[in-house]
Amino acid sequence: MSDVARAAGVSSATVSYVLSGKRPVSAETRRAVEAAIEELGFRLNTVARSLRTGRSTLIALVVPDIANPFYAQLAHGLQETLRPGGFHVAICNTGARLADERAFLDEAVRQRLAGVVITPFRLAPEDFDVLASASVPVVVSADLPFGDHDLVTPAADGAVRAALEHVAETGRRRIGVIAGPRDAAGGDPRLERIRAQAPAFGLRLPDALVVHGEHTRDAGAEGFGRLMRHRNPPEAVLCANDVAAVGALERAEQLGLRVPQDVALVGHDDIEFASIVRPRLSTIRYPAEEVGRACARLLAERLEGRSERSTVEIGARYIKRASV
Amino acid sequence: MSDVARAAGVSSATVSYVLSGKRPVSAETRRAVEAAIEELGFRLNTVARSLRTGRSTLIALVVPDIANPFYAQLAHGLQETLRPGGFHVAICNTGARLADERAFLDEAVRQRLAGVVITPFRLAPEDFDVLASASVPVVVSADLPFGDHDLVTPAADGAVRAALEHVAETGRRRIGVIAGPRDAAGGDPRLERIRAQAPAFGLRLPDALVVHGEHTRDAGAEGFGRLMRHRNPPEAVLCANDVAAVGALERAEQLGLRVPQDVALVGHDDIEFASIVRPRLSTIRYPAEEVGRACARLLAERLEGRSERSTVEIGARYIKRASV
Repeated sequence: MSDVARAAGVSSATVSYVLSGKRPVSAETRRAVEAAIEELGFRLNTVARSLRTGRSTLIALVVPDIANPFYAQLAHGLQETLRPGGFHVAICNTGARLADERAFLDEAVRQRLAGVVITPFRLAPEDFDVLASASVPVVVSADLPFGDHDLVTPAADGAVRAALEHVAETGRRRIGVIAGPRDAAGGDPRLERIRAQAPAFGLRLPDALVVHGEHTRDAGAEGFGRLMRHRNPPEAVLCANDVAAVGALERAEQLGLRVPQDVALVGHDDIEFASIVRPRLSTIRYPAEEVGRACARLLAERLEGRSERSTVEIGARYIKRASV
Repeated sequence: MSDVARAAGVSSATVSYVLSGKRPVSAETRRAVEAAIEELGFRLNTVARSLRTGRSTLIALVVPDIANPFYAQLAHGLQETLRPGGFHVAICNTGARLADERAFLDEAVRQRLAGVVITPFRLAPEDFDVLASASVPVVVSADLPFGDHDLVTPAADGAVRAALEHVAETGRRRIGVIAGPRDAAGGDPRLERIRAQAPAFGLRLPDALVVHGEHTRDAGAEGFGRLMRHRNPPEAVLCANDVAAVGALERAEQLGLRVPQDVALVGHDDIEFASIVRPRLSTIRYPAEEVGRACARLLAERLEGRSERSTVEIGARYIKRASV
């Protein structure tokens, strides 16, 4: 730190203020310090910081369902990126329950954790005030902006277009969607993307063919069953995630329906399941490891003093396999 | 607490000593207090306890590989049992690295966590001394006793017998094993159970047909490939876990080998994967949720004052599906 101070021609305290954001610093001073940091390749010594600030080196990753392999992969990307910096990741599974989501935020403050990476499920942005007031940095991984937090989010319009185009090319006209829960925070952007783009490909998505459920195998099976009991069932079903799609595939087998001959199926995420099931699942790949790495980078930047909000878009793409 | 003290005819302090184990209490007094607790249905008020002792209400679940759904299920059982008591579970993924295993134990002490549930992978029992000296209770989930810690462990002899019997009944004589890593703490009890029981069913397991690897899909694929390249390959392959078995199954498909016609395959654990793959995997079911619940009960007993060591055996059983 003293090297940085010397190079920037300021005191160590000023460098510390720039890094911690605890006191205002003039734009000019900030630039000088940042340039010196850049030049010297200064990297936060996390252990020293932990001792100085009494902060933990633990990062909480708060997720709705650790049984969904997407989050295990995200955790891996996060962990591998933060590990060389001396941080460890603790995965907090909320079971998509609001009370548990809140409890983990409280714990993060009480334990003075180094940071929180979260996929909020039923939380509202104001639930995060407790973290802001304790200066615990937060990175959100979600399909939509959440309050004014740093965000890692999919750029999925092109992937959804490609999936719908493939469905239309194979002659389907009437589609259904197994969407997320009705009361999810921020609505259901995956559903909305499909709804917005379907007409351009001559695809119809009647309201009656949109079913909601938790993002689980059981909910996927149940939702698929409901769609196929409709007097005019869909010719293709798009699912909000692969776990639900696997449930749908199993229910199809139970009902004696062949995929894709009788009904096409598209997943979302491209977790391991997607290429293990038969037929292999066509899906919209949202690369969980890369999402985790991006979350790690945003959090590291915050710990190193960045104070402006930042958003990273991760490209999703359609993976054509055997279920359409 | 005062109700318990009154019913037992002792002071509140004595009740506290019985619960915390901090001071010795006569066997008679302990029994009286325990009976009173039983009678009054007294349950530890964890929040009050946390405030009083400065301890967190967080429990660390330390596992080698959260990408293995076995541990996500174990986490679920643990969490659901501890939640009503006001505890939350933080999952710590070590990636089977000794340095990370140690780091999480250190964090548990530094953060004054309420307890640790762990599947040690490369740790030695003496690595746990740091927890004992900080009075952080530990429950171990493992195939073998580990130091003198509370233990949840499989009773799997019968299940292994049933699997080997099925393999022998279908005419196989020469078997191979995809075992865990060579340097795993405590050896490889899953391999040893098979080795010990195979001869009784007329099955031969040559040393050359035992391959070691991490418990991953890639390692399973690689190990299976090595076994099948042997000039005299096995007629049945038993795997140390289902994740490795799924990798083996995929490699079989790539090699043009039919399962079970050309080679039989047996997994271990019965994670979701096992019934999702085709052919469905015959496997030794070790019920992860139940393991998690047992870990939770042992930990709760420790938090409520039990000081003697306790071991819980969870029955494993062979699930006959389509891969043998």
